[in-house]
Amino acid sequence: MMKLNELGEFALIDRIRAQVKPGAGVLRGIGDDAAQLELPVGEQLLTSTDLLIESCHFDFAWTTPADLGHKAVAVNLSDIAAMGGTPRYLYLGLACPGSAEVSAIEAFMTEALALAEAHGVTLVGGDTCRSPGPWVVSVTVEGTAATGRAIGRDGARPGDVVVVSGSLGDSALALAQLQRGQSPAEFLARRHHRPEARVALGQALAATGCVSAMIDLSDGLSSDLGHILEASHVRARLDLAALPLSEPFTAALQADPELLELALSGGEDYELLFTLAEADLPAVLDLGRQLNLPLTPVGVIQAGEPSLLLREASGAERSCQTRGFDHFAARKQRDDA
Amino acid sequence: MMKLNELGEFALIDRIRAQVKPGAGVLRGIGDDAAQLELPVGEQLLTSTDLLIESCHFDFAWTTPADLGHKAVAVNLSDIAAMGGTPRYLYLGLACPGSAEVSAIEAFMTEALALAEAHGVTLVGGDTCRSPGPWVVSVTVEGTAATGRAIGRDGARPGDVVVVSGSLGDSALALAQLQRGQSPAEFLARRHHRPEARVALGQALAATGCVSAMIDLSDGLSSDLGHILEASHVRARLDLAALPLSEPFTAALQADPELLELALSGGEDYELLFTLAEADLPAVLDLGRQLNLPLTPVGVIQAGEPSLLLREASGAERSCQTRGFDHFAARKQRDDA
Repeated sequence: MMKLNELGEFALIDRIRAQVKPGAGVLRGIGDDAAQLELPVGEQLLTSTDLLIESCHFDFAWTTPADLGHKAVAVNLSDIAAMGGTPRYLYLGLACPGSAEVSAIEAFMTEALALAEAHGVTLVGGDTCRSPGPWVVSVTVEGTAATGRAIGRDGARPGDVVVVSGSLGDSALALAQLQRGQSPAEFLARRHHRPEARVALGQALAATGCVSAMIDLSDGLSSDLGHILEASHVRARLDLAALPLSEPFTAALQADPELLELALSGGEDYELLFTLAEADLPAVLDLGRQLNLPLTPVGVIQAGEPSLLLREASGAERSCQTRGFDHFAARKQRDDA
Repeated sequence: MMKLNELGEFALIDRIRAQVKPGAGVLRGIGDDAAQLELPVGEQLLTSTDLLIESCHFDFAWTTPADLGHKAVAVNLSDIAAMGGTPRYLYLGLACPGSAEVSAIEAFMTEALALAEAHGVTLVGGDTCRSPGPWVVSVTVEGTAATGRAIGRDGARPGDVVVVSGSLGDSALALAQLQRGQSPAEFLARRHHRPEARVALGQALAATGCVSAMIDLSDGLSSDLGHILEASHVRARLDLAALPLSEPFTAALQADPELLELALSGGEDYELLFTLAEADLPAVLDLGRQLNLPLTPVGVIQAGEPSLLLREASGAERSCQTRGFDHFAARKQRDDA
C-alpha cells in the first residue's frame, strides 16, 4: 500500500485534478491563485464552509474514508439547500498524516467528487497538506439563488406551521448503536454515513415564495428549530406524536421509549425544517409528494420570547432546551464525568 | 485565564459576531446556513481557500496567536491580489484544544478582523470547534474582478519581462533565524509574521490590462515562477544579480553568501511576481513608484519547454529545480535523514 509520504503533495493534487470535469461558469479552477467564476446574471451568491476534524466530527472506528468524502460534501450541500439555493462550486482542503494510505485518500476524493458531480457541482479549488495528527477536512461550497429568493432563518411568523422533511433520529440512532459497538441496520447506517442533501426540495420550496424560514437539521430538531426561533423572535410548540419516524426507528422505539429523545434532539438528519402560513400547506405537501419525499407538519409558531414547548401524546406540555450542540461544552461534560 | 472549555462554542461565536461590522453586499452573514451576498454587476467571483495546521504551517514557539490571525488572512488576501482582484468576504474556521486560552483566541480573531477591515473585507461566515490536538485554521476569501480583467498564471509569452514587487527572502531569513533560536531584526520578523498582501498593486496591474501572468510568492521565487512557466508552457531566465534584496537581508548575505538561496527559493514573501511585454515596463514601473512599492525586472520569458535558467553575476548560466515546496516530501526527507 502506498503511503502519502511516498506519493507527495503535488502528485496527489495532479491525481485529483485529473478526476475533475470542466464545469459551467468556471473560467479558472484548480491550479491558479484563486478560482475565477462567472455567476448567472440575476443570482446572488450563497457560501457555506465547514471544518471537520477526526475524533471531533468523525471517527474512523466506524466511518470509512469513502463515507467521510460523501458526508463532508453532503453537509455543505445541505446548507445551500437550506437557503433554497443551487450549489455550484466546491473547494476541498484535506490534511492527513504522512502515513495515511493513498488508497484511503483516493476513496475519500472519489466519493466527494461523485456526490458533487451528481449535484452538478464542480471542484474548483483546494489544498492538501500533511497533518501532525488527525485528519482534517475543510469544505467550502458556493451556490446561487435568484435575487430575493434565498430563505433565511429569520422570517417565521406567529401562526406559521412548522414542517420537516423525511424522518427524524435515524442518524443519531445509528451513531448511538455504533458507539455501543452494535451494527446498525443498513437503512440506519446509510442515514448516518451517507446523508442526502435535500437540494431539489430546497429549490422547489424557494420557488414557491411562500416559505418564511428554513434551516437544515444538523444539530437536531429542537436545537435547529431554536435557531429559527431566536432569529425570528418567536416561540414554537412541537407535537411529539407528530414527529415523522422511519420503520427501523419505530421498531427500536418500541423496545426503548427513551429513544424518542433522538428524534427530538439527535443530530445529523440533514432534513429540511421550514415554516409557512397554514393556507400554503396543502400546495407544499403536494410538492413533497411530487419529489417522493414525505413532508410532515410537526408544530406551530406562536408569538412570544424565543422558547420551545413540547406537547406530549397525552396533551401535557413541557418546555425544552433549544440551544444547539456545543462541541466544547459537550466534551467538557464528558471530561468532567 | 478563561479556557475555551469554560466559555463554550456558542458564546465564542457570539463574541466574534459582536465584533463584526456590516459590509457592502451582505444580505445574510454569520448566523444563517450560508452567507447570502450580492456581487457588483459586471464582476466575476474570485475565491481562495487555505487550511493551516499547527506544527505544519506555523509554530507557537515563535508565532503568537495575533500573528497567526494576521497571516492567515493576509495569505488569502494575497491570492486575490495575485489575480488582480478586490477581496470582499471572509470565512474563518478555527479549531483549538479545549484548554486553549480564550484570550489567545480573541487575539487571533482581533488581528484577523483588523486586517480584513483594513481591506474592506467583511467576515460573513465560519465555524469553531474543539480540536483533539493542533490548532487548525481554515480561511476562505471571496473577491471580485471586472469581467475579463482577472490575471491568471497561464499567459506569459516569450519576450516578456519577469517583474517582482518588494524584496525577496526576508521572511525565509527570519524563519531560518527563528529555527536556529536567534531573534531576527524587527524588519525581518515583521516580514515573516505580518506579511502585507499587495492588493492595491494587484488591482492597479489588472487595470492596466498589460500583465500577461501573475502569481504571489508563497512557495518561493523559483517555485512560483515555475508555476507560471508550467501553466504558460514557456521557460525563463532569472538574473541572480537583479534580485531585489532589503538592507537587512543584504547585510546578512555579506556574512554568509549561501543565503542568496533564500531569496531565490525561500517561501512566504507574499510579493507579486508578474510578466509583461518589455514595451509596457516603463509605465508599470511608474505605477510601483506611485504606490511606493519597488518593482524590479528580474528575468525574461523564453520559448521552450518549462524550465528555469539562472544567470550568475559572472554571466555563467545553470538550470534550477522549479517545483514548489512539497509538505509531504519535505517532511519525508527529514524523517529519512
